[in-house]
Amino acid sequence: MNKSELLLRLQPDIEAVNEVMLREISSVNNPMLREILEYGIFNGGKRIRPLLTILAARLCTFARMPEGLAAEDELQPPINLYRLAMVFEFLHGASLLHDDVIDHADKRRGKPSANAVWDNSHVILAGDFLHTRAMTLAGTLGGEQVLALIGAATSAMIEAEFLQMQTVGDRNPAEENYFGVLRGKTGALISAACQVGGYFAEANAERQAALGNYGNALGLAFQVVDDLLDYLGDPEKTGKAVGNDFIEGKLTLPLLHGLQNCDESAGAAMLALLRDTPEQRALHVDDAHRFIEKFNGFAYAREGAEALVEAAVESLAVFPDCRARQILVGLAHYVLNRQK
Amino acid sequence: MNKSELLLRLQPDIEAVNEVMLREISSVNNPMLREILEYGIFNGGKRIRPLLTILAARLCTFARMPEGLAAEDELQPPINLYRLAMVFEFLHGASLLHDDVIDHADKRRGKPSANAVWDNSHVILAGDFLHTRAMTLAGTLGGEQVLALIGAATSAMIEAEFLQMQTVGDRNPAEENYFGVLRGKTGALISAACQVGGYFAEANAERQAALGNYGNALGLAFQVVDDLLDYLGDPEKTGKAVGNDFIEGKLTLPLLHGLQNCDESAGAAMLALLRDTPEQRALHVDDAHRFIEKFNGFAYAREGAEALVEAAVESLAVFPDCRARQILVGLAHYVLNRQK
Repeated sequence: MNKSELLLRLQPDIEAVNEVMLREISSVNNPMLREILEYGIFNGGKRIRPLLTILAARLCTFARMPEGLAAEDELQPPINLYRLAMVFEFLHGASLLHDDVIDHADKRRGKPSANAVWDNSHVILAGDFLHTRAMTLAGTLGGEQVLALIGAATSAMIEAEFLQMQTVGDRNPAEENYFGVLRGKTGALISAACQVGGYFAEANAERQAALGNYGNALGLAFQVVDDLLDYLGDPEKTGKAVGNDFIEGKLTLPLLHGLQNCDESAGAAMLALLRDTPEQRALHVDDAHRFIEKFNGFAYAREGAEALVEAAVESLAVFPDCRARQILVGLAHYVLNRQK
Repeated sequence: MNKSELLLRLQPDIEAVNEVMLREISSVNNPMLREILEYGIFNGGKRIRPLLTILAARLCTFARMPEGLAAEDELQPPINLYRLAMVFEFLHGASLLHDDVIDHADKRRGKPSANAVWDNSHVILAGDFLHTRAMTLAGTLGGEQVLALIGAATSAMIEAEFLQMQTVGDRNPAEENYFGVLRGKTGALISAACQVGGYFAEANAERQAALGNYGNALGLAFQVVDDLLDYLGDPEKTGKAVGNDFIEGKLTLPLLHGLQNCDESAGAAMLALLRDTPEQRALHVDDAHRFIEKFNGFAYAREGAEALVEAAVESLAVFPDCRARQILVGLAHYVLNRQK
């Protein structure tokens, strides 16, 4: 499935999710709060998480139907599935709002961040509001198990952020830590989004677990590709300056592998740069690029992302072939090949 | 019931709540996160909210038992009630952590605030963590209705904070707005704490509503007394400087009533002060005190708090007289007469 076909297939679900989100936000009384929520949620996000919930549910519904009972395209997800799917976009949105406050970020996808438009106070509270609404919807629409799953994923996200902040000063971290942070920060919620779709469609435990594995591998691949795009992406498309992670002193997989694979003198020079100021590093983005290239960091991270996508696709082998599975496979390849 | 008897009666429940909270926090993996949570939760709070849940449940359990079936003191609340009660302390704790970040507060109950000890990033995330844990516990222990009730209370808190921030510049707000903010910021969660206790004990709708009314009136009274203590309290006891609200330009009930009740020239002078800088207002705390005294603001607010406490006590008339009711009545009077 090529990209344009994939997007065409996804469009109706994206619109349905946008609609339930808009309706939910319009029920907020305070006009300024409503405005921040709309700005934070309708900011060009790809709706990956809610789409995964919907596709996972559709896949499981198809998988347990007697063959030939209905054409797959006629399986209309009930409105509550869209509302449950929205939970994941709200949680994601809440964490982006708080992340931008924490990172003092003034841009998000090329536009001013919410905390640049309003202020930290309002944005912290707006994040809390989204979070409350998401958790309430999770429990009332999905029941105790869904709530517990989402609660565990959100806790894992926060613990991973602590881990990441603690290892920022650590100039020689293990690859294990890098993936540990990724699993918590990105894998946990995406994995939960997939699993909850399966749960909603009353899939058995094996299928729910398979969906969870798919989501985790997809989430990790997504983040590794993000880290590659930070060095290799086209700023026109990504909306971010090249080498941003390096300037901030973040050790992502390409650089991490370079450091593990380099000779001693090159390593010492790179570590000196990493101990230096962001301003100094900003002058050396090209050097960092050459360093990673020379010591095979880009190829290594790329292979890692490919292996993850392959694992994600393999997790879906327990399901019969159908349109929903094709889309999920297509999404995995899209994650790998995306330019932004 | 005098204060020392009241505290003696409450002590075992306070200890039980502290124990379940400590156990919950000790399950957190990240050591720094655990430390912030412990600091934020075990900071000298009075545990009013969880106590209300426990007392409300005990009252309702007693009320629906055939007379003479068991001595009230033998009604041991199940462990899940303590855990459900903890939810309210966690939500309260989460909102204090975020409030102190938002207000740039460096003190909380006479000790350095969490954001003074760590930094904003870690404290925002720790608040999010408490919040997630609280919502998850609410739904898994209390079910959908409890979750929905708590979700609504938390949303109301946030909407009230928006309302309050928007009216800060408003130098002539209506008393209605003042109470609107109070109902959201303090009343909603305390009301929910009481109602959830009733729900847990399977009380009928009338009794749940009565408990909700009790909690709302108690919460409002608590906050009005807080606003009085800000001017009239002994800093040695409250741990806060006298006139803090005035210095920050906050229009609380005593000053609000003074402004509504004063002559024109005194009002103009006071409004000029309120438009001035905090540094200027800090030099005029005594003037503000005299202004409020002269125009009857303290007496008016005091009478308001008394009327609220009376309403709270009256809400409990639907319950038979018993130890739990006596304690709830005692708590209401304690709120009125507290020195800190």
